[in-house]
Amino acid sequence: MPDVSIDLIDPRTVGAPAGQGMSTGMTQTIVIAQGGGPTAVINQTMAGAVVEAKRRDPQARILGALHGVRGVRDSRFVDLGALPEDQLMNIARTPSAALGSTRDKPDAAYCEKVLAGLKKVDASAFVYIGGNDTAGTQAILSDASGGSIACVHAPKTIDNDLVENDHTPGFISAGQFVAAAFLSVDLDFRALPGIYVGIVMGRHAGFLTAAASAWRLDDDSGPHLIYVPERAFDRVRFVDDIRRTMDKHGRCIVAMSEGVSDASGKSLVESLVPTAMLERDAHGNVRLSGTDLGQAIERILAEDLAGKRSRVDTLGYMPRGAISMISETDAKEAFEAGRFAVEVAESGSGSVALQYAGGVTKPALVPLDNVAGKTRHMPDDFLDRDENRLAAPGIAYFDRLLPRMFEPGKPFV
Amino acid sequence: MPDVSIDLIDPRTVGAPAGQGMSTGMTQTIVIAQGGGPTAVINQTMAGAVVEAKRRDPQARILGALHGVRGVRDSRFVDLGALPEDQLMNIARTPSAALGSTRDKPDAAYCEKVLAGLKKVDASAFVYIGGNDTAGTQAILSDASGGSIACVHAPKTIDNDLVENDHTPGFISAGQFVAAAFLSVDLDFRALPGIYVGIVMGRHAGFLTAAASAWRLDDDSGPHLIYVPERAFDRVRFVDDIRRTMDKHGRCIVAMSEGVSDASGKSLVESLVPTAMLERDAHGNVRLSGTDLGQAIERILAEDLAGKRSRVDTLGYMPRGAISMISETDAKEAFEAGRFAVEVAESGSGSVALQYAGGVTKPALVPLDNVAGKTRHMPDDFLDRDENRLAAPGIAYFDRLLPRMFEPGKPFV
Repeated sequence: MPDVSIDLIDPRTVGAPAGQGMSTGMTQTIVIAQGGGPTAVINQTMAGAVVEAKRRDPQARILGALHGVRGVRDSRFVDLGALPEDQLMNIARTPSAALGSTRDKPDAAYCEKVLAGLKKVDASAFVYIGGNDTAGTQAILSDASGGSIACVHAPKTIDNDLVENDHTPGFISAGQFVAAAFLSVDLDFRALPGIYVGIVMGRHAGFLTAAASAWRLDDDSGPHLIYVPERAFDRVRFVDDIRRTMDKHGRCIVAMSEGVSDASGKSLVESLVPTAMLERDAHGNVRLSGTDLGQAIERILAEDLAGKRSRVDTLGYMPRGAISMISETDAKEAFEAGRFAVEVAESGSGSVALQYAGGVTKPALVPLDNVAGKTRHMPDDFLDRDENRLAAPGIAYFDRLLPRMFEPGKPFV
Repeated sequence: MPDVSIDLIDPRTVGAPAGQGMSTGMTQTIVIAQGGGPTAVINQTMAGAVVEAKRRDPQARILGALHGVRGVRDSRFVDLGALPEDQLMNIARTPSAALGSTRDKPDAAYCEKVLAGLKKVDASAFVYIGGNDTAGTQAILSDASGGSIACVHAPKTIDNDLVENDHTPGFISAGQFVAAAFLSVDLDFRALPGIYVGIVMGRHAGFLTAAASAWRLDDDSGPHLIYVPERAFDRVRFVDDIRRTMDKHGRCIVAMSEGVSDASGKSLVESLVPTAMLERDAHGNVRLSGTDLGQAIERILAEDLAGKRSRVDTLGYMPRGAISMISETDAKEAFEAGRFAVEVAESGSGSVALQYAGGVTKPALVPLDNVAGKTRHMPDDFLDRDENRLAAPGIAYFDRLLPRMFEPGKPFV
């Protein structure tokens, strides 16, 4: 942006050896970066880290790396410590990764360059905010630095799929968006009945899709069916589910994860979309385009449930950084995760995890390897065994995380 | 719903001749119905009509017809007058049409049956809340009743496409949802650059799509391009627009109406999707499925802008009844439109229009034929002549209607 309020630090200065330039060797240098998909509160985590670093050492040099590890590798930093507190807190309240993000998953060679970038600025700690890939990067960096730099992973993901965490910063806000969307669409379909399928982000974990159920009003309310990656998708069963729901409720609201797969583990997009039309990313993963899946679902509805009014929408990116649906709890927890990451950096590397006990959510430090590269799936007992809907443990979990925000009146239909 | 708080009126009672059953002939009977796509505030209009009817005649019989003219034809009513005020106001604050809606566009024969249904309950006035089709139904009914029943159309549509209106109830709330979604997605794409296309409802009018621009932060902000039904879509131009935007801003956020058409007037869905795959509704209109258009756009991006990260989402039904984004102004104007509809029913049939003069929005009564079957398009000067973006008059209009709700901080990227 043309009028961005702080300038990039001149790499010639930042890169100068200790004793010259900005770095005196007397004060700590902490580097902060953001990785993976942005969320509504990832900037709170950055702000929490900055505030804590300043509190511990008012002279600390606090550098923000642009676009995650790329910025560290390429010595592209902003001086977060120089940012006035009101500007910092405005950014904290703003969704998306203010430092920019990256999808890079560095290998050992890439990590060597990142490490060199950290050493160039005399970093004593590197706080990297992101998901399980980010934890993996920190594990490599921590080993490669031989413990000379505290590499701390601060959690972030709307997928809610980090092990060791009760839930992750970013999930509650995104979940609220999804819950409100499905509550609203269900009300809409009471007025003009039909079949609605809303496709929600989530490659391996169904938490965000299941959040669609959080604000159901009663047993008649949608979503009536949820399809998540944790349960094998079967076309015949799907059509039968919808038919029974239409018979019972006169309408059928469906929440479906982008990553739903058949019994062989092949994603629904892959099994329904002609191979030639599939796109793959640099890692060879099939791109789970919402409209690909949406088209496939529309074809199923047209073929097997012909004549019924239906609609498929793809929520896509809307839930993950929705400025209109930021949860205060999520914001506070994200800030605290960042603050805690700097606090624990004094004692070395690790991953910050939000844990829940005795009615309270608190950050804890766990080994990076516990989190790196692992996916937390939605527990099996969250779903009914025979129905595509939440069971009591799932309902209790979402009730706790996503207290109802809206109390609609009772429609006449 | 099992525990709906007021029961359907027994048609045997309601249908009884004057002097028997509920109708005494001494008090007025007002019938209220809701038609077309639901909105976030159509229940405010219903509530406004009920409150005004009670105020004018505390003994008035106020009937709500279920599913629009269908309910009138089939004598399916609820007793809105019996509803406690707190329940009425809870419903007013709830999106979607609480009475149920219909897509029926009655012809003369159907209208005869509707008229019979109105006479059966001794209706002196019929307030029908909806879009231009609804105004058309009222025009037929008004003529057929020979002036014996005041047939008043109260405006409602997220498309904002009713002539005689400065804007329509439902549009501001839906517009806020769209503006917030694009502000959020633009922030997201600053962090992870690429091309984003969000597809927004709107068959003939581009107002809702253009609302995506309302909360842009500065000249760098998205949406960078908007495509509306009022301007012919050209694939070569589209690709070129995106390429130039990517060069200039490093990302490209696009808001596109479902109803965009090529120079021959053929909708983009029709011209891009194989004919065999097109679905048509009962009126022969091609179903403008967001995912059909989304797929077509994804193919264009894959073919002509290969290798660029891109994503297409379909906002679909989410904006129109979003419980999270109801505008207080919209709610008040919708309530007032319903109240005014009952006030003017004393002097005969007509269409209520929200007009703007001297800085104030006020309802006025206009002839039904002025509104029936007509579509208000976005004025040509709302768009730049040569660029797919808003020009000053468009910016001024959306600034007035959609005051900014969020002041984000400045990202570093």
